[in-house]
Amino acid sequence: MSRAETISVELNVLATFQPKVPAAHVSTPYVLLGNAAPAVQLSVLDQLKNPKFVMLDTMNLWITTQRPALLQLLPRVDAVCVNFEEALQLAETTSGAKAIRTILDMGAKTLIMKRGEHGATLATRDGQFSVPSFPTDRVIDPTGAGDSFAGGTLGYLAQAGPEKDAMRRAIVYGSVMGSFAVEEFGTKRIQGVTREEIESRAKSILDMLRV
Amino acid sequence: MSRAETISVELNVLATFQPKVPAAHVSTPYVLLGNAAPAVQLSVLDQLKNPKFVMLDTMNLWITTQRPALLQLLPRVDAVCVNFEEALQLAETTSGAKAIRTILDMGAKTLIMKRGEHGATLATRDGQFSVPSFPTDRVIDPTGAGDSFAGGTLGYLAQAGPEKDAMRRAIVYGSVMGSFAVEEFGTKRIQGVTREEIESRAKSILDMLRV
Repeated sequence: MSRAETISVELNVLATFQPKVPAAHVSTPYVLLGNAAPAVQLSVLDQLKNPKFVMLDTMNLWITTQRPALLQLLPRVDAVCVNFEEALQLAETTSGAKAIRTILDMGAKTLIMKRGEHGATLATRDGQFSVPSFPTDRVIDPTGAGDSFAGGTLGYLAQAGPEKDAMRRAIVYGSVMGSFAVEEFGTKRIQGVTREEIESRAKSILDMLRV
Repeated sequence: MSRAETISVELNVLATFQPKVPAAHVSTPYVLLGNAAPAVQLSVLDQLKNPKFVMLDTMNLWITTQRPALLQLLPRVDAVCVNFEEALQLAETTSGAKAIRTILDMGAKTLIMKRGEHGATLATRDGQFSVPSFPTDRVIDPTGAGDSFAGGTLGYLAQAGPEKDAMRRAIVYGSVMGSFAVEEFGTKRIQGVTREEIESRAKSILDMLRV
């Protein structure tokens, strides 16, 4: 369960999707540019008014077929959130440590590298932070774990404000939300999760970092 | 560089090795039972006089061919130190989280699960601790990284005494020593490493855990 493998991608309606951000949402402060063609992500970004924090997702397809547009996007967002294999592919290396440095050199302000059940690493020019995954015994379906990680991270940032080390704490909550996502098919587990369950897992992860 | 793959094993002289621990070493307090047949490890363990801490290494070959002897050894040592794939194989699962719980249920007091460049996890019945790997840019040869990790861990324990969270700090130093091991062929890098270099990397890893 520690590696993602793409068997096939069917873009369907997304192949010609040209989203227009509704007026009610153009001032959204915390934005996840979900996994779509870089040109679509760029178009959405251009429609936003002064977002506070924009996170970029992408995938192997775009890294291979739309590299120039993707490279253009990297310095324009606040964080790039990709999995380990995508980071290696983007940086054209087999070393995670090298991938992190290369992607920062490409202009990413913050890189979040998701390592599946091995956790995740937050990297900026100032340093790195590594969070373990919450060791759930119940892995039913990993679909959506990465999106839940991104949502948990952005949700924490949105409520935390400018606290010190907010990004570090944010990916702890990202890791927590990813762990719930895998415990059922679809959104079933996430929909039923309580604040107490979230805080309990966050506490467990913080204890796994104590030294 | 995140997965070990065995292409072939040639036991050579180790196939019939029946070590007799010299009198000068039977009272060694910190012991690594290096990767050998479980029967050999058991024989060495039986020759030791009141060791303070015994760590067990093993590999896929023994997990497959000598499982009963290996399972007999697990509860008799203080820590089992294996890599991610070996832990999955020993626990007969595809989930790292399940492997950790299963190996503790098999009677291991402490499990150290090495995750290659993704770091390592220390697990006991009381909780888990995860350490990242030091993100070296220079990976020349991973041979010996696991043994250097074990050596760094035991070396720290030997000098730390019974301090609180010594095991957690010990695997930080294990991770540091593993990072030096991969930077050259053989023992070249490790032999030349200074105390300052070690402390500098330990400090970097501790910063990667701060939240």
